[in-house]
Amino acid sequence: MSVRVAVLGAAGYTGGEVLRLLLGHPAVEVVQATSGQFAGKRLDFPHPHLRGVGTLRYTPHDALESCDVLVSCLPQGELLLRWQKVCRLAERVVDLSADFRLDAAGHSRWYGKHPRPDDVPAFVYGLPEWMGEALTNARHVAIPGCMAHAGLLALLPLLHAGLARPDVLVVDAKTGSSGGGSTPDRSSHHPERANALRCYKPVGHRHTGELEGVAEHVTGQKPTIHFSATAVPGVRGILATVHAFAARPVEEAEVVRAIATRYREKPFVRLLRPSASLSPFPEPGPLLGTNHCDLAVDVDAERGRIVVNAAIDNLVKGAAGTAVHALNLMLGRPETEGLGFRGLHPL
Amino acid sequence: MSVRVAVLGAAGYTGGEVLRLLLGHPAVEVVQATSGQFAGKRLDFPHPHLRGVGTLRYTPHDALESCDVLVSCLPQGELLLRWQKVCRLAERVVDLSADFRLDAAGHSRWYGKHPRPDDVPAFVYGLPEWMGEALTNARHVAIPGCMAHAGLLALLPLLHAGLARPDVLVVDAKTGSSGGGSTPDRSSHHPERANALRCYKPVGHRHTGELEGVAEHVTGQKPTIHFSATAVPGVRGILATVHAFAARPVEEAEVVRAIATRYREKPFVRLLRPSASLSPFPEPGPLLGTNHCDLAVDVDAERGRIVVNAAIDNLVKGAAGTAVHALNLMLGRPETEGLGFRGLHPL
Amino acid sequence: MSVRVAVLGAAGYTGGEVLRLLLGHPAVEVVQATSGQFAGKRLDFPHPHLRGVGTLRYTPHDALESCDVLVSCLPQGELLLRWQKVCRLAERVVDLSADFRLDAAGHSRWYGKHPRPDDVPAFVYGLPEWMGEALTNARHVAIPGCMAHAGLLALLPLLHAGLARPDVLVVDAKTGSSGGGSTPDRSSHHPERANALRCYKPVGHRHTGELEGVAEHVTGQKPTIHFSATAVPGVRGILATVHAFAARPVEEAEVVRAIATRYREKPFVRLLRPSASLSPFPEPGPLLGTNHCDLAVDVDAERGRIVVNAAIDNLVKGAAGTAVHALNLMLGRPETEGLGFRGLHPL
Amino acid sequence: MSVRVAVLGAAGYTGGEVLRLLLGHPAVEVVQATSGQFAGKRLDFPHPHLRGVGTLRYTPHDALESCDVLVSCLPQGELLLRWQKVCRLAERVVDLSADFRLDAAGHSRWYGKHPRPDDVPAFVYGLPEWMGEALTNARHVAIPGCMAHAGLLALLPLLHAGLARPDVLVVDAKTGSSGGGSTPDRSSHHPERANALRCYKPVGHRHTGELEGVAEHVTGQKPTIHFSATAVPGVRGILATVHAFAARPVEEAEVVRAIATRYREKPFVRLLRPSASLSPFPEPGPLLGTNHCDLAVDVDAERGRIVVNAAIDNLVKGAAGTAVHALNLMLGRPETEGLGFRGLHPL
Repeated sequence: MSVRVAVLGAAGYTGGEVLRLLLGHPAVEVVQATSGQFAGKRLDFPHPHLRGVGTLRYTPHDALESCDVLVSCLPQGELLLRWQKVCRLAERVVDLSADFRLDAAGHSRWYGKHPRPDDVPAFVYGLPEWMGEALTNARHVAIPGCMAHAGLLALLPLLHAGLARPDVLVVDAKTGSSGGGSTPDRSSHHPERANALRCYKPVGHRHTGELEGVAEHVTGQKPTIHFSATAVPGVRGILATVHAFAARPVEEAEVVRAIATRYREKPFVRLLRPSASLSPFPEPGPLLGTNHCDLAVDVDAERGRIVVNAAIDNLVKGAAGTAVHALNLMLGRPETEGLGFRGLHPL
Repeated sequence: MSVRVAVLGAAGYTGGEVLRLLLGHPAVEVVQATSGQFAGKRLDFPHPHLRGVGTLRYTPHDALESCDVLVSCLPQGELLLRWQKVCRLAERVVDLSADFRLDAAGHSRWYGKHPRPDDVPAFVYGLPEWMGEALTNARHVAIPGCMAHAGLLALLPLLHAGLARPDVLVVDAKTGSSGGGSTPDRSSHHPERANALRCYKPVGHRHTGELEGVAEHVTGQKPTIHFSATAVPGVRGILATVHAFAARPVEEAEVVRAIATRYREKPFVRLLRPSASLSPFPEPGPLLGTNHCDLAVDVDAERGRIVVNAAIDNLVKGAAGTAVHALNLMLGRPETEGLGFRGLHPL
Repeated sequence: MSVRVAVLGAAGYTGGEVLRLLLGHPAVEVVQATSGQFAGKRLDFPHPHLRGVGTLRYTPHDALESCDVLVSCLPQGELLLRWQKVCRLAERVVDLSADFRLDAAGHSRWYGKHPRPDDVPAFVYGLPEWMGEALTNARHVAIPGCMAHAGLLALLPLLHAGLARPDVLVVDAKTGSSGGGSTPDRSSHHPERANALRCYKPVGHRHTGELEGVAEHVTGQKPTIHFSATAVPGVRGILATVHAFAARPVEEAEVVRAIATRYREKPFVRLLRPSASLSPFPEPGPLLGTNHCDLAVDVDAERGRIVVNAAIDNLVKGAAGTAVHALNLMLGRPETEGLGFRGLHPL
Repeated sequence: MSVRVAVLGAAGYTGGEVLRLLLGHPAVEVVQATSGQFAGKRLDFPHPHLRGVGTLRYTPHDALESCDVLVSCLPQGELLLRWQKVCRLAERVVDLSADFRLDAAGHSRWYGKHPRPDDVPAFVYGLPEWMGEALTNARHVAIPGCMAHAGLLALLPLLHAGLARPDVLVVDAKTGSSGGGSTPDRSSHHPERANALRCYKPVGHRHTGELEGVAEHVTGQKPTIHFSATAVPGVRGILATVHAFAARPVEEAEVVRAIATRYREKPFVRLLRPSASLSPFPEPGPLLGTNHCDLAVDVDAERGRIVVNAAIDNLVKGAAGTAVHALNLMLGRPETEGLGFRGLHPL
């Protein structure tokens, strides 16, 4: 018997990927999908990759009915505003926005004054490789920000193993354009964006709060994380380069071992070994459409630097895929169910 | 019980896609994969999208053993040279090169003197939407050239229905770089190819023979097809624009009806209706990785022109996907088995 | 003593290129530039390539003062509305929109009812290689549409020399995104446009009127021109592929000779000889920023087809560069003055 | 009377840009250009942007004759091998390779054993904004590596003013493909490179030696510079992001002032002010073809991080343009002579 899932705000880019994955998920039935702009249209109207997917039509957000699981792809701030009504309609909620990622203090710091600090429940931070058990029992999950997600997968094992100094960690993230969503503006206008190579948020990016908060939660240490985001050409994909500094003299092999051990049982995180591939570097290309994160480690022993690179598809591992991964964990399904696509190359 | 399939020349781009599709095919077991360059390496060594796919290793081409079906992705000319040996090893052969697409006379005309005109069997031309029954019973299938394939899907219904003049058909095909294969040269060097927009084969392209030959075979008319190929930026995807001229005054609705009728039962060809999508034009983007061909029709009644645009992924519908489609037909399996991936958007 | 030039609507993409060229033109002084959106800002505010260009600031369109030459980059329809006022402010006017390209009947046919058919002067069509003398004496010049421009340079010599049948000429134009201007919308949103390969105007494109009208004007024949426009990845550049059909049996050498002869004295049109370059195909890349048009000819004698490919930078040869070229002719200056940039490669 | 300049190895990408700039330089005559592969061909044969540039032909490297200034674009190692012969043919030499950037010890460390440590002269490091006077009197100049160049322009003012800690400086450089030169290989094969986003040299990059050596030379401090290089889509352009850490509490305004003061008289370095432009971030796009470097500064006072981003065209400011700039300084010409191109936007 299928789990009945509704998708709020399903007409945007993460919504389209959530629909793609759920429509192919053997244990799930998509019972409702909402859209402000496209209410009344078929699901595939704004999603050309879903052509012919069936006869379901978008309803307005306010027409949401009760379901087993609600997946929300609403823009930042929108679910918070609707929370009192929405929380009664679904046993479980997975939110892909930033509305519930931080506690009320953190939220106020990075996103502006929290509208209702007292009456929202604690959401579990949906980073499956590090929050596994908490997710298994969660009713409410907040999916990480895409760049924070890649950065955390790279830096947490270093902090956790005590290999890196927590007081100076640099996360230099490079991102395609789809993370900005489906609403046009000047910076996403093709002639302005096509060959962009610009560090659009050198300091002060909101994901800093998420990175520092989760790193502290996981390691018990209060780290200082320096985050910058750079727009690069391309639509999908993130590469997060973590520059960490060795807490004590280390060899590359030791760092490799620590990371490999940490992710050994994790089906979606792969530590690349240079000799195993003609394409030994983590890069988003062959990961697009998949829920994988590829990692690689390099150490400059002379200068005491550890570099970890993490590549993901921002719309899948960085959003919709992790939502489905979390849903699998919450429902006691196999972790990889519905997430078996292998990727394409070349692309 | 699985069908045992071997893939000859599996380390190139079409080989990588054939492996991806067959490794996910429920009725197939990949028992062998050959590579001249990578013999001894694991399957995923040259294919980053297949990381972790298992422990099978490439063998040299000459180590090919017997199997149920052989899929050959060898470069043009290579299978012909090995034919006497290879044909004894497999009951069925699907070839993705041009070696068996044309009869001996056609082959000599477009590819140089045929090395052994007398001792090769007739291959069925693997265009499933038009050769359905012949494919069902075929032992040997030649997969169409990728640009010819897109062009034929667009123009055959016009000729078949008598809507277009057969004496002047223009096929203006635009293609990404992956059709050129995985071997570097100056024209594929990234700085030279990245922003290429060049008609590299205005006349004399080899696919002309295939287009004219198949159109004659299907319609009984000897048409004149004018083919040009233009390199555009991008890695995957073909858009073939057919400029046809009405054999008699026609309205757009009549042409739409003729094409829609022709492909009604064909699961991989979709005639787009403009009102059904925010993205009403056939384009490769949302088709990448899938076996779909999207079509659209436009008529300039005043000037008597019919334009049909056809978009495909050159490595899937234009190569590996059609090989699997043909294999499904040959083996009496469901047409779409192993070909269910829906595509990604945006990409 | 410099010619005093004002630029109307100078904040868009063609305006930016007109400014770049005029600010480097030895015989010109830019005395005014107007913008609705950026009035009060410095010229380089919307134009990062003009950083540091000086202290001139945009004025509102209505603050236009008298000048020697007015170059208008206003969007289609805007100059027509202002014509009664504007025409008194400048001795000479060069317009880059479609407002004055067609006669009133043609305008009504392709652009909707002409607002004032009786009180606008005839503009000379600014195609310098074919209208040379008329331009020299012109007071009012309408710069051709960018795709029509490339198509005409390719097809006019064939018609003029009687080599091509006038009743069936196909112009298949491929274009980057910058021709669509600087205003964002969904189709220009980077994730939707980056890998676009779509024939967005298979029939009914407005440039058809321009192509047929000018071809008739130049040759005295009433041709039928079949035009389609395809969006390809990339920001700048147009490749127009003309498929023409030989009026009588011809060899390639004869067609080459006819075109070479026609453009021998024309500094901006180059007929490429394949043996002279590692990059023998016309393509926009090495032309970007320049006023050149590169042409190549290929003949399929067996099938009677003549293919002429024409590549230009849509914002320079297809807009701003031709405006400066026309201005040079009108003012009796050397044709190439201010247009000496050679282009970049690779790009 | 013109300065007679010969270009060694003029058929590659930096050679093509050196030719473009020198052919347009009013004080220079290009008297010879050499190429191993294209000897006997005209200059424009491998350079489509130089079509029609004249009748000069390439000679073999060994046919080099005496000249006033020799500009060498030979690949790394080649000029060193020819030095004894070449140094007698020209009064002045500008080298664009790494052969003379480091002293013999540094060279052996990063490039392998120096072939002749005793008999080569000291070259001046050609970083005009920091070596001005030494360059004015130089006979031999070594042009900086392109990524080192961008990194140094960003970090030297911080070190020089004592604002940044010298013991931990991270330079995260993003680069297009043209820096890899014109010789095809697998990593530059278009399908592999087009959407690349890979940190191909996380540690151990040779430019580290240059960065640390020059920083020590300029500041007298021995800094530790952590350099990583990431390949991003696109052909031209580098963005170097310097993550520095404040030596003492600083405000953004103070850092801005220090950098602005340092480069006030430098015509090619521009510190962007966010309010002055719709495009406030340094990015290579509008700089392509120009000799500019655009910089921006951001400070996270809370965490003590200073970020400086530097954008250049790797083939101009990062190679050929600086060669011409150095040549102007050596010859006592105006600094900007022959380097006046303003750039294009959008591109």
